[in-house]
Amino acid sequence: MTPAEHSPLIRKLSAFVALSEVELAVLARLHRRRRTFVAGRDIVHQGQSEQTAYILSTGWVCSYKIQADGTRQIVDFQVPGDFLGLRSVLLRTSDHSFEPVVDIEAAEVLTKDLLDAFAETPRLATAILWAASRDEAMVVEHLVGIGRRDADARMAHFLLELGSRLLLVGLGSKAGFECPLTQYHLADALGLSAVHVNRVLRQLRETGLVTFREGHVTFHDLDRLVDLAEFDPAYLDHSGPLLN
Amino acid sequence: MTPAEHSPLIRKLSAFVALSEVELAVLARLHRRRRTFVAGRDIVHQGQSEQTAYILSTGWVCSYKIQADGTRQIVDFQVPGDFLGLRSVLLRTSDHSFEPVVDIEAAEVLTKDLLDAFAETPRLATAILWAASRDEAMVVEHLVGIGRRDADARMAHFLLELGSRLLLVGLGSKAGFECPLTQYHLADALGLSAVHVNRVLRQLRETGLVTFREGHVTFHDLDRLVDLAEFDPAYLDHSGPLLN
Repeated sequence: MTPAEHSPLIRKLSAFVALSEVELAVLARLHRRRRTFVAGRDIVHQGQSEQTAYILSTGWVCSYKIQADGTRQIVDFQVPGDFLGLRSVLLRTSDHSFEPVVDIEAAEVLTKDLLDAFAETPRLATAILWAASRDEAMVVEHLVGIGRRDADARMAHFLLELGSRLLLVGLGSKAGFECPLTQYHLADALGLSAVHVNRVLRQLRETGLVTFREGHVTFHDLDRLVDLAEFDPAYLDHSGPLLN
Repeated sequence: MTPAEHSPLIRKLSAFVALSEVELAVLARLHRRRRTFVAGRDIVHQGQSEQTAYILSTGWVCSYKIQADGTRQIVDFQVPGDFLGLRSVLLRTSDHSFEPVVDIEAAEVLTKDLLDAFAETPRLATAILWAASRDEAMVVEHLVGIGRRDADARMAHFLLELGSRLLLVGLGSKAGFECPLTQYHLADALGLSAVHVNRVLRQLRETGLVTFREGHVTFHDLDRLVDLAEFDPAYLDHSGPLLN
């Protein structure tokens, strides 16, 4: 694991707050309890209480809800620099489950340590409120995607958002990114069948927009893809620190 | 307008933090700039930057996104005690629009005042992070509703959630609540046509579960309605202060 000063969370929060030495030290302390988790086994179960939060350092996680009839709705994926279960700690009961998509490394953050960190450095609390607001904006986009976008635009929007999120934490490039998701993940996130996902991906590839193959997403024509998705990245707020 | 000490926001945050005199005073200060807005005219437009946030005191607001093809997805409704545009202030660009459903009263909160308040009372920042987490949990439920619930369960879940939120701020009762929404609001929120909304409401009424008529929602059989919706209110976290 990288030292906390180079952690993806710190890269991400730096987009909002120019972090001081004290704030960096408090963040470093939150990274102390390092854990590893294997792919495919839930870290947190829906309905679980008294869990802790985690800061994801490496790997991808999927957060989802299972309905009583067994269908799964993936709410979002977490990438390095994201919190896992921050909302659940504050709301005391997890409203969803977390499953590592690949083997991951994460720092365990006890509720008390988190609340103490906020008390010590209120700007850090504000920065984390910013990150939570950004997470909420992403869920809103997924809601609009499922409610109002056709399958092509929905997929295009989703891949552009992932690319943008990864860029902010130093992963991937404008040309594309490594992506461990399966077509089943995409289907459960986008409200499509796996067959439909396959068809949409083929069409996006054949029209020269984007290829997702063998764990890699390659953007061929970003401008046209952005147009198709009506992708406006303002909600990801990558315009530089607001708090100096 | 009621004095800040009796504001719906303070009632709501008190579910999470036992507020001190200092915290109450800071919150009172945030309620100073009182504004009124008329029904049907946007307060904040999607894509707008440099806007302020508001604390809603009376009335209902609807937050929505318009797609390029003109379709509207309502993301959520805001009721007394909710922030309007908190996320937009932090993310600097509003990713959605706000429209009062009825004439409303709200306190305008300048970004600087909000950030100063957080610096002064970190517990308040934590409480507002809790409220933001709760808002996000609601958007997640709406996503799951549109993605995975059939129309009856979706409507039932939505009405139960509204009832629960209103109860927390002292509006309505277990028997029901005043509701100024039209069938068009319900349709745009739930991803249904107005005709379908009408049919679903008739069915819920005829099976003796809930009636929505003439601006009033009446719960006839809460237990059966909760079963139909698979409604688990844990995500609304009404179990009493975590921070004492």
